[in-house]
Amino acid sequence: MDNQQTLTKYLLAFIAGLKHGGVKQAVISSGSRSTPLSVLVARDPEIKHYIDIDERSAGFFALGLAKQSQQPVALVCTSGSAAANYFPAVCEAEATNLPLIVLTTDRPAELQAVGAPQAMDQVKLYGSHVKAARELALPEAGPTMEAYSHWQGFTMVAQASQLPKGPVQVNIPLREPLLPDLTVPSSAPAPTKLIPNQRRADLRPLAALLGQNGLIIVGEERTPAEAEQLLSLAERLNWPIIGDPLTNLATGRRSANYLHQADLIFQGTVPLPAVILRFGRLPVTKSVAQWLGKHRLPTILVEAGQQFKDQLHTSNYLLDMTVSEFIASVEQLPLTPVSGDWLGKWQLRQRLAASLLEEEITGQGLNHSSAITALMATLKNTDLFVANSNAIRLLDRLAKASNRGVRVYGNRGVNGIDGLNSTAAGICARSDRPLTMLIGDLAFFHDLTGLAMIYRYQLPVNIVLLNNNGGGIFSFLPQHQLPAADFQLLFKTPQNLDFTAVASLYHLDYCQPTTLEAFTTELTKTAPRLIEVEDQQSGPVKVWQHLLAQYQQQERELND
Amino acid sequence: MDNQQTLTKYLLAFIAGLKHGGVKQAVISSGSRSTPLSVLVARDPEIKHYIDIDERSAGFFALGLAKQSQQPVALVCTSGSAAANYFPAVCEAEATNLPLIVLTTDRPAELQAVGAPQAMDQVKLYGSHVKAARELALPEAGPTMEAYSHWQGFTMVAQASQLPKGPVQVNIPLREPLLPDLTVPSSAPAPTKLIPNQRRADLRPLAALLGQNGLIIVGEERTPAEAEQLLSLAERLNWPIIGDPLTNLATGRRSANYLHQADLIFQGTVPLPAVILRFGRLPVTKSVAQWLGKHRLPTILVEAGQQFKDQLHTSNYLLDMTVSEFIASVEQLPLTPVSGDWLGKWQLRQRLAASLLEEEITGQGLNHSSAITALMATLKNTDLFVANSNAIRLLDRLAKASNRGVRVYGNRGVNGIDGLNSTAAGICARSDRPLTMLIGDLAFFHDLTGLAMIYRYQLPVNIVLLNNNGGGIFSFLPQHQLPAADFQLLFKTPQNLDFTAVASLYHLDYCQPTTLEAFTTELTKTAPRLIEVEDQQSGPVKVWQHLLAQYQQQERELND
Repeated sequence: MDNQQTLTKYLLAFIAGLKHGGVKQAVISSGSRSTPLSVLVARDPEIKHYIDIDERSAGFFALGLAKQSQQPVALVCTSGSAAANYFPAVCEAEATNLPLIVLTTDRPAELQAVGAPQAMDQVKLYGSHVKAARELALPEAGPTMEAYSHWQGFTMVAQASQLPKGPVQVNIPLREPLLPDLTVPSSAPAPTKLIPNQRRADLRPLAALLGQNGLIIVGEERTPAEAEQLLSLAERLNWPIIGDPLTNLATGRRSANYLHQADLIFQGTVPLPAVILRFGRLPVTKSVAQWLGKHRLPTILVEAGQQFKDQLHTSNYLLDMTVSEFIASVEQLPLTPVSGDWLGKWQLRQRLAASLLEEEITGQGLNHSSAITALMATLKNTDLFVANSNAIRLLDRLAKASNRGVRVYGNRGVNGIDGLNSTAAGICARSDRPLTMLIGDLAFFHDLTGLAMIYRYQLPVNIVLLNNNGGGIFSFLPQHQLPAADFQLLFKTPQNLDFTAVASLYHLDYCQPTTLEAFTTELTKTAPRLIEVEDQQSGPVKVWQHLLAQYQQQERELND
Repeated sequence: MDNQQTLTKYLLAFIAGLKHGGVKQAVISSGSRSTPLSVLVARDPEIKHYIDIDERSAGFFALGLAKQSQQPVALVCTSGSAAANYFPAVCEAEATNLPLIVLTTDRPAELQAVGAPQAMDQVKLYGSHVKAARELALPEAGPTMEAYSHWQGFTMVAQASQLPKGPVQVNIPLREPLLPDLTVPSSAPAPTKLIPNQRRADLRPLAALLGQNGLIIVGEERTPAEAEQLLSLAERLNWPIIGDPLTNLATGRRSANYLHQADLIFQGTVPLPAVILRFGRLPVTKSVAQWLGKHRLPTILVEAGQQFKDQLHTSNYLLDMTVSEFIASVEQLPLTPVSGDWLGKWQLRQRLAASLLEEEITGQGLNHSSAITALMATLKNTDLFVANSNAIRLLDRLAKASNRGVRVYGNRGVNGIDGLNSTAAGICARSDRPLTMLIGDLAFFHDLTGLAMIYRYQLPVNIVLLNNNGGGIFSFLPQHQLPAADFQLLFKTPQNLDFTAVASLYHLDYCQPTTLEAFTTELTKTAPRLIEVEDQQSGPVKVWQHLLAQYQQQERELND
């Protein structure tokens, strides 16, 4: 594909997103850099355009259009001071809650901050006076980036239109040649529809979708009550449901619909659903994200607060609702559960995965993999805080569903290994029951000062320290293919710490069990204590690779 | 009052605001600058506090508390790099939607940017990673500033708690002495209660308030449909209702409950309501704002989108609802309209004001004051765009209610005199009927290039240009007491423009009527045209001052 085609398809997808968001009017101030956007907007039969040479005037003219229609209105200008002329109208739109969609075209990175003509820093140009400001990536070819471009157009208009309404900015760097290819037919991703959280949100359009073979994918931390509602929903629809440990789907009651070895199952071949019903962001399970990205299936995303967090850009319906609001609304719909064959195919895979895992772990002795399965089989009526990096991934891969009253927490917002001891302490301080923390040595070391709170407030926290002397997660990742010296220096990062000193500094009871039996006994003792379990960085990798090979081989023989 | 007392009362009001917003937990990292806040928070029996020396750990500990409780949690630290240590937890709270209330104390302005110890720029320290960032003013004594401080505490917590939840920052500069006065009793403004826009918002607590003698005050632009709903509500409650021209209360049907000379009436003595029901921001009518500020009456504020725009900081109930959502909810309440005596007292004043205005204007010939009354008596089935500065104030003061199908628009967000011609053109381009613009010469000149759109798209816009050769509004304001040379240079600002040249540049028909009859005839002619009406800057001032003196004298004789 040539540059003009790439540019054109990318911008057409963006404009389709604007229209799906509700843009029907645009005010264009012509200029060179904005040429392709101006031409494509002006030629769009579904957008009424106006031309205004003076951007300051154009901003206010668009404000008048928005004031009269109460609809979002797009503004298009070239790079440089042109965009600054919109500022007065942006301020007025902010104060009167009018949805101006300010599209400032810009020069690409290589022409920034080098004295190129008509180039200035346009990123977040209007500061806190817009509801959102974003820079679009340079045009790229292919369905992934066109879906991205469409999503930016759609979500920025949706944000501007959400109460209280207001202006938004999208800065759009474009590279020459600036002429669009006018022979490219206008085709765009399927429309996305936002269903806001209103008193009488109409979910009837979803009834047909929910009557087909579907899959529920749950992300983000969920309370046990939400988890129970989600399991019941899966049972009502007769659909399989997956979600990582933080969703607490695995730790309430057992449900035949819940697949607790999703990371294995989605590395095999799975039956193709007609529809995906997602709650919140994606689970930690990487193979699920990759599978979704490959198949791009029709998707309903339920996410309270209109945050538009769909990293795949594939949602067709965005429902601004909490889990319980969604469940209450669905209960009003006439639904026929799908045939049990659909669920059966998934359960077949779940049984295979579970039995292979059982075989794999049995008789291993104490290591990081067996510690995880033992942990989940032992803990009862307690909170479990699971650290980022290896800990949560091992738990996601190796833990079986249990119904022992464990509630799982983590810090999966930006997934840092910072502040984990402190977060666990804060949770335990507020709850009225003991907490077990599962954490690797690097993360534990990173927030050493956080242990002071456990001592100061005598919090009943038991720490299971998965010590592999460094960054074990990188043994699972492509970085392990680096030359050994680089890998050791930057990723394996051994700290060679004696954790008995840490225990003594913060008055923690310390132990280092060497057998599975000793380990499980320590788990049930009075907190606060530090339970250190050693393993090689390569240990869990070998276990997982063997298990995966076994599964993929035997799954082929499943007779669907 | 000494400094310690002032500081203490001010911070106690702020802390009361935090608690009214829902704060029940706080994590304090001690330090010098934060002393008064730390001590007062730690001594508050309704706030459970934790002490954590390391602010990075404290941030994550608070995150854990918020994660477990789903409640807002306050963080208190001293000035300098302490606040920067919260940043990792702020980022995690942003991504996982947890309401951290980050209170960073700071040095006052005179110690900023001069190399004072532990001082750095803490304003908007966390950039776009908090939902809102605000700096509290230095402590001041008195109920106005304590209400302000309380409002900041309350609204910042409310913003953090609104879906999607997230962190906020309040930067709190404090001046020495930093010790609070521990003998000051904890008393604070009456609680503010936020009623969010939920499916089953319970308005029953309002029923008692709505059964008393009340007054409805409407602000912001309202559609004719909203205006009709608001008039009906006033009639149902048997309450008076006021609102400036943009509310369109004056331009739909006539209602005996609507007071169309509020600026006169509120400069006399008015009966004291038991409750104020406000919709949106305050109207343009300054005497109403001053009267409200003086009496600080129990107030219900209806404002969709939780924007907290109460410049008086007096709202006791904040209802996140549109006008129609509120009306629909109130219809469910059992209400008994108050006795007609209440409304009668107001109608007496309205009749006096209306008859004095009639007397004042009659026989004046054409000037800016008589042009306004003639305009509203002449326009029919048209839009009216009213410019800022003098134009809207004259319209608010002198226009009588009419039922001639006029819809009024303006730009009252940040009230600029910029972009008004363009906004009017945008409104007219989108509507299917003619528009009349009422504008002064400075505002008209400021957006001269905006006229191009009227010509280009042949928009039916008639411009009534109130020309007084400069900034007439300042003749109403204290600036006119400045030495004559300063006033002339900076405020009277004569431009000495020949507007026939403007008309010819933009192909507008031009006229300058000299009688009221000629003026009204021009109003009904085909647009686009420029109708220039000249007056002295002091002209409307004399009219208004005479009218006001008449009203205040005769109002004293009213027998309530």
